[in-house]
Amino acid sequence: MPGDARPIGIFDSGVGGLTVYRALRARLPQESFIYLGDTARIPYGTRSPETIRRYAREDAAFLLACGVKLIVVACNTASSLALAQLQAEAPVPVIGMIEPGAQQAAATTRTRRVGVIGTEATVASAAYPLAIHRIAPEIEVVAQCCPLFVPLVEEGWAAHPVTATVAAEYLAPLRQSGVDTLVLGCTHYPLLAEVIQPVMGDAVTLVDSGSCAAQEVATVLSRRGCLAPPTATPWTRFCVTDAGDRFRRVAELCLQETLPTLESVRVET
Amino acid sequence: MPGDARPIGIFDSGVGGLTVYRALRARLPQESFIYLGDTARIPYGTRSPETIRRYAREDAAFLLACGVKLIVVACNTASSLALAQLQAEAPVPVIGMIEPGAQQAAATTRTRRVGVIGTEATVASAAYPLAIHRIAPEIEVVAQCCPLFVPLVEEGWAAHPVTATVAAEYLAPLRQSGVDTLVLGCTHYPLLAEVIQPVMGDAVTLVDSGSCAAQEVATVLSRRGCLAPPTATPWTRFCVTDAGDRFRRVAELCLQETLPTLESVRVET
Repeated sequence: MPGDARPIGIFDSGVGGLTVYRALRARLPQESFIYLGDTARIPYGTRSPETIRRYAREDAAFLLACGVKLIVVACNTASSLALAQLQAEAPVPVIGMIEPGAQQAAATTRTRRVGVIGTEATVASAAYPLAIHRIAPEIEVVAQCCPLFVPLVEEGWAAHPVTATVAAEYLAPLRQSGVDTLVLGCTHYPLLAEVIQPVMGDAVTLVDSGSCAAQEVATVLSRRGCLAPPTATPWTRFCVTDAGDRFRRVAELCLQETLPTLESVRVET
Repeated sequence: MPGDARPIGIFDSGVGGLTVYRALRARLPQESFIYLGDTARIPYGTRSPETIRRYAREDAAFLLACGVKLIVVACNTASSLALAQLQAEAPVPVIGMIEPGAQQAAATTRTRRVGVIGTEATVASAAYPLAIHRIAPEIEVVAQCCPLFVPLVEEGWAAHPVTATVAAEYLAPLRQSGVDTLVLGCTHYPLLAEVIQPVMGDAVTLVDSGSCAAQEVATVLSRRGCLAPPTATPWTRFCVTDAGDRFRRVAELCLQETLPTLESVRVET
């Protein structure tokens, strides 16, 4: 098998998708990546479904024009609202966050009660409850949006006491509902795992949809014979649509490493 | 004098400009207004100068096409970065937030130390220090960006204890610097006045740039003979570029009144 050295495309509205990139790179160290952060139009989570679909289509078109072999929608909001459309239109596999996270949650819960946290748009779309119910209709799903989590992460306040206070307030209904599994339904939220876990208690398992999606990407590429050859020299391109300095600052905070050059691109059609 | 019944155009990235609308309506009750909230591209405060200028130009073009007699840039970020360009291009007067707020601050301070709070982009532009120094070069200006204030207001948490904690942290350097006047350099911030005032103490005067700008609008219209006739029946159109439900919810929270119909518009060229 000669392998397929073309890069994997990843897009998100900003830095949140970097948690997915980190999981992908750990799982698939031979692969190359093009990461698109649509920072000119962040956040997606408070926008209307039509606008989110338009943005997602433009992001995917940019990555396809770069010659990617697979697209990862590293944004739960865009996955919730635009995945079916992207899968119907793109000539390569498109992997979202919802299905892998739902699978993992259904396999994990013992109490058959699962919590989901996400942006307003993700929660309003009911994408997670629908996906979980397709797998196991008897599971009760309790969803809660946490709109301040993204700005808190982007401000670099993941470890700030205020964030713990906000988390305690947002998560109180979930704590009282008896869930034993909590889906982190926004790619920023794994950066808050150390705040969320103590609030929920050790008996609750956190599901990182991004990590689950990374496993799904590995499976799909392997099945199609499209993994990079073992001799490949992996590389990553980081592209942003605006405000590179801010992206770099927050991204380096999140990834705990220095980023290479950022390319400034435009994706609006 | 027959008067000029054409509406005044106001634009902001979202609901913050409603504090300016409220001030304008109180000062000029005979006038009609077209309010544009560019909610599809909010927030402006974390974007690059080039992008902010492009958005502001598109917002102004929309209002001009509606036949406004004057444009109020009810957004400190857009005022900081795009006002000169808009004034050079528009065939009607364009009033921003910075100059009126700077005038008021310079007239108010006794200690000759003025604080300014705003978004990242507004603070990075140094628009307020520059404007204040043009009026009174000896005034010392201490600026501080407060990125979480806008999300906290938009979440409806203006009165939440967390907001007081965040304010105490952001404003600590200003409190220690001995300013006696603080410019609220973001149109969302008047909604946090009741949190900011106790943190700063009663000896510090808060300057609401939006109210100062409303006075400036009245002066300009009066000088040009363009005030609405006393017989006019005033009206307001609210236009948003996305997610009207969210705008309505936050706007009604801010204005403490029910909004009429929202029109969904597109301003991208």
